Amino acid sequence: MREPRRPDTIFWVDPSAVQGDRLTLDLEESHHLLHVHRAVAGTQFVAVDGVGVTYECLLESSDRGLAVGSVIRTLLEQGEPPVPITLLVGLPDAGPAETVVAHAVPLGASAIDFVACTRAGRPALGPTRVSRLSRIAVSALKQSRRSWLPGIRSSPSLDAALALLDDGPRFLADPEGRSRIDPRHESIQAPISLAVGPPGGFTPEEAGRLLDARFEPISLSNSRLTTETATIALLAVVRNQLK
Amino acid sequence: MREPRRPDTIFWVDPSAVQGDRLTLDLEESHHLLHVHRAVAGTQFVAVDGVGVTYECLLESSDRGLAVGSVIRTLLEQGEPPVPITLLVGLPDAGPAETVVAHAVPLGASAIDFVACTRAGRPALGPTRVSRLSRIAVSALKQSRRSWLPGIRSSPSLDAALALLDDGPRFLADPEGRSRIDPRHESIQAPISLAVGPPGGFTPEEAGRLLDARFEPISLSNSRLTTETATIALLAVVRNQLK
Repeated sequence: MREPRRPDTIFWVDPSAVQGDRLTLDLEESHHLLHVHRAVAGTQFVAVDGVGVTYECLLESSDRGLAVGSVIRTLLEQGEPPVPITLLVGLPDAGPAETVVAHAVPLGASAIDFVACTRAGRPALGPTRVSRLSRIAVSALKQSRRSWLPGIRSSPSLDAALALLDDGPRFLADPEGRSRIDPRHESIQAPISLAVGPPGGFTPEEAGRLLDARFEPISLSNSRLTTETATIALLAVVRNQLK
Repeated sequence: MREPRRPDTIFWVDPSAVQGDRLTLDLEESHHLLHVHRAVAGTQFVAVDGVGVTYECLLESSDRGLAVGSVIRTLLEQGEPPVPITLLVGLPDAGPAETVVAHAVPLGASAIDFVACTRAGRPALGPTRVSRLSRIAVSALKQSRRSWLPGIRSSPSLDAALALLDDGPRFLADPEGRSRIDPRHESIQAPISLAVGPPGGFTPEEAGRLLDARFEPISLSNSRLTTETATIALLAVVRNQLK
């Protein structure tokens, strides 16, 4: 008999759907496992709950289209950066915001705040847009095999966004900044915050607020970067240097 | 009288359309300058030729829809990295290839080779696809205010791609690699080559060929990255560390 092949995909499971050593996928994820991957009883699969736990499972049964797995191993904090990384991104258009989420989640962002700062020229994102971005985050989480789902939010002003930050090293994408991160940060095990201006940049007043809030300006390139390219680049550089 | 406002955009000019201190934009760029930006005689604008020269101009005349500018200043190598950076990217789908071009051009890639390596599972890109990617590169060049247009190519195999590389430091995105670039590279002023596998990764044979060709494996994250995210991240990290 042919061994059921383990799907290369990872499945999403709501934390409330895990009970003891059994978990139940929702309808959409069950459909994917049972019909796209044609899993049968005994097929191995992997599920992640978005709050730090990855479950290696065996498919036990499928009841009314819902796949039930028995957990054979749990793994904690798979694929996570050593410290939380929060991004403050000056609110761009819809497409660039989706680009930021799609690339920043695999690179380890723990929270992304699309800030309606002055030059964003639009109000903070409403719940519909935030939940669309969160769905993109779930799919990036599954693809990248991380285990914590980043929170997506949209603060109405830079001050409101700054009020939510943890203490720890802070960096600002700024063509006038120094090109390296000070090596004294490399051993710090505190949450990191990164800020990138909206298309058109932060206003001088906002840039001043960020410097007052201990953001260190880092230059990423001597060319002009869009909000989305600068966000991905700053995250990649910080992730690489501070681990 | 109101001073004509200088467009914030940069315009593309073919090198053959520059004669002495006069240059002529093509129909599409002229339309953009004359009709979208409503430039009039005396309006300042900036044009780039994609082979290293940025021209600051005054609009002189528009003859049959073609804008003619007189050059008031030329700038060389604006927005360019200190050394050329060539990317070998395992050929992904059309969308991810466009994403790579859109972000890698502003971050300083000098050439991008979409390599039809084994797991790409498709032949090298034909001229139509390459020219579509080149148009995306022109638009990214203008937006980012760089001055050299990166060459886009598509080699039929990894060996063919390796044969085109210059000597100099070489780095490979590889989860098994070390996380830092050896500081001995920081002062090197030689062309840099970066390699990122296709979706599914390089085969063990290809990875061996890259190691034999002196590519140093660099880990970008402990999560799994797509070809496009890994390419942007590796370029951002190298650009930041080697300048």
